[in-house]
Amino acid sequence: MNKREIAQTITASRKSDPGTEGIAFAPINIALCKYWGKRDELINLPVTSSLSISLRPLGTKTTVRIAKGVDRLVLNDREMPQECQTSQRVTEYLDLFRPDPHTAFHIESVTNVPIAAGLASSASGFAALALALDKLFGWELDSLSLSILARLGSGSASRSVFDGFVEWHAGEDPNGMDCYAERLPCEWPEFRVALVEISSEQKRVSSRTAMARTVRTSKLYQGWPARACADLEELKAGITERDIVRVGSVAESNALAMHATMLDSRPAVLYWKPETIKAIEKIWAIREAGSTLYFTMDAGPNIKLLFDERDSTLVEDEFAPRSIITPFFA
Amino acid sequence: MNKREIAQTITASRKSDPGTEGIAFAPINIALCKYWGKRDELINLPVTSSLSISLRPLGTKTTVRIAKGVDRLVLNDREMPQECQTSQRVTEYLDLFRPDPHTAFHIESVTNVPIAAGLASSASGFAALALALDKLFGWELDSLSLSILARLGSGSASRSVFDGFVEWHAGEDPNGMDCYAERLPCEWPEFRVALVEISSEQKRVSSRTAMARTVRTSKLYQGWPARACADLEELKAGITERDIVRVGSVAESNALAMHATMLDSRPAVLYWKPETIKAIEKIWAIREAGSTLYFTMDAGPNIKLLFDERDSTLVEDEFAPRSIITPFFA
Repeated sequence: MNKREIAQTITASRKSDPGTEGIAFAPINIALCKYWGKRDELINLPVTSSLSISLRPLGTKTTVRIAKGVDRLVLNDREMPQECQTSQRVTEYLDLFRPDPHTAFHIESVTNVPIAAGLASSASGFAALALALDKLFGWELDSLSLSILARLGSGSASRSVFDGFVEWHAGEDPNGMDCYAERLPCEWPEFRVALVEISSEQKRVSSRTAMARTVRTSKLYQGWPARACADLEELKAGITERDIVRVGSVAESNALAMHATMLDSRPAVLYWKPETIKAIEKIWAIREAGSTLYFTMDAGPNIKLLFDERDSTLVEDEFAPRSIITPFFA
Repeated sequence: MNKREIAQTITASRKSDPGTEGIAFAPINIALCKYWGKRDELINLPVTSSLSISLRPLGTKTTVRIAKGVDRLVLNDREMPQECQTSQRVTEYLDLFRPDPHTAFHIESVTNVPIAAGLASSASGFAALALALDKLFGWELDSLSLSILARLGSGSASRSVFDGFVEWHAGEDPNGMDCYAERLPCEWPEFRVALVEISSEQKRVSSRTAMARTVRTSKLYQGWPARACADLEELKAGITERDIVRVGSVAESNALAMHATMLDSRPAVLYWKPETIKAIEKIWAIREAGSTLYFTMDAGPNIKLLFDERDSTLVEDEFAPRSIITPFFA
């Protein structure tokens, strides 16, 4: 099945009773065990399962309305040109759900995260859009189906449908019907994530391009699936025990391994800045001094610190982070 | 066979007519396709073949004399304490060749490369010692046998027995009798190597430790042998054609892949300094501007530039290198 057939299959049995608008919010998420490599590029099926933490209140709030004429996308109060890549990706996504070719959608999105700075803005964007469409059409889909619909927009959007710790199952079905995310049944009120901005420059290589190049050219990548699989199991055990040392050290190691596969690609992809190395050295020095501070990175130069609330003051003093997230804030 | 049995086998059929002293020089070498991982730790057998360029006039000159009492090692006019690691490695190596337990050796070595700064000083040291012992005992061994003897001291020393481009064959024999280096029949007078010092700090993790940890803990390492094998073939083709673009780009990519396997290790090994990233960014910017400038790195933060003589002025102006080597200086 192609994307449209999958979307139609999922929504076919549901009533479709469009209201005037659908509104939804979805958080960004950062992976502790990375999604790195697709086994199917057309419908966003990953090589391995992955695991993330959602970073509410950071995310995207989207309103979708049915209209006539052409699709319109207003992002943070700015009308996006139809030719821009973002508008085109959104229009292609809306094509999956358009009841007839004359129906257009007007989308208004407000996001409080920097776009394309390695902070998964497309994940929260497509998750919010899928949730908003569900409300607009009144489908009342279950969360697993919504996760699949979000995935069709952007792989990691499948995880942004949920809060908390989320596992995205790679699945085996060639049509991806078993390839969805689920929230893990764990509350961990002391868990903290701090966003440390190293550079806000637009990336020279998109993470999508870096991922595809890695799978195509890296010989070391052949060891990645086994590593991701082992890391995922260790993370889940660590999360169950709320063990920051175990969770932090696996997440950090997994992120370094992802960057390792990029370095092995041809041409090499190097997202690190000199300040990235400085930050890593600083984190390791703080850890040697006895604190339980770890980091992860996505496909970009920025650092996300993982720690227990008791180290919040240390993190604020040493890193002056852009923000500290409390994922399990009641 | 253990090391001593191998050494005895190689020297057994030769006359042994010790003179008063043996003197020899061996250059340092840098690998363009790295030696990264041992299949036998006891007799230094590598997982893959590797390829290097020798950097004469940088290297070690060693004089060895037979004496009574205990071994003595004088390094750059400094008597080394018997308990230090260097003295112990040398004494263990000399044990392989000691005609009887009462024979001691006095070693005087002069080296013009910084010790333990990722510049393979142990490679030139053990190669020079093997060559000096050959002269002292008058064995007149062929260069392949000398390469094996050097290897027993330090894996990469097998390559420092030669000048120019050198291939070290991994071999298959469990006793390593087919595991030696050979000079490639290529002269390339325009080939240049510049040593750019990023940091002269002693490394916190020795390359020996990093290599063993990588083989033991890195899952990505399983892709390394296939990569090294492909890189070696491409390098040999590039060297035959004297194609700086081909040789430079494979060498650079191979070095990045080696560092990638270290990042994937647990705990991760990161030799890079902030200035390493700055230097890499600068090299890539210069290359985008049209120059054929490449780099390689060993297990350390320093950068070695690979280029054609026509870019010597550019390299001097932009990097103020510690030295520029002309490996094929007549």
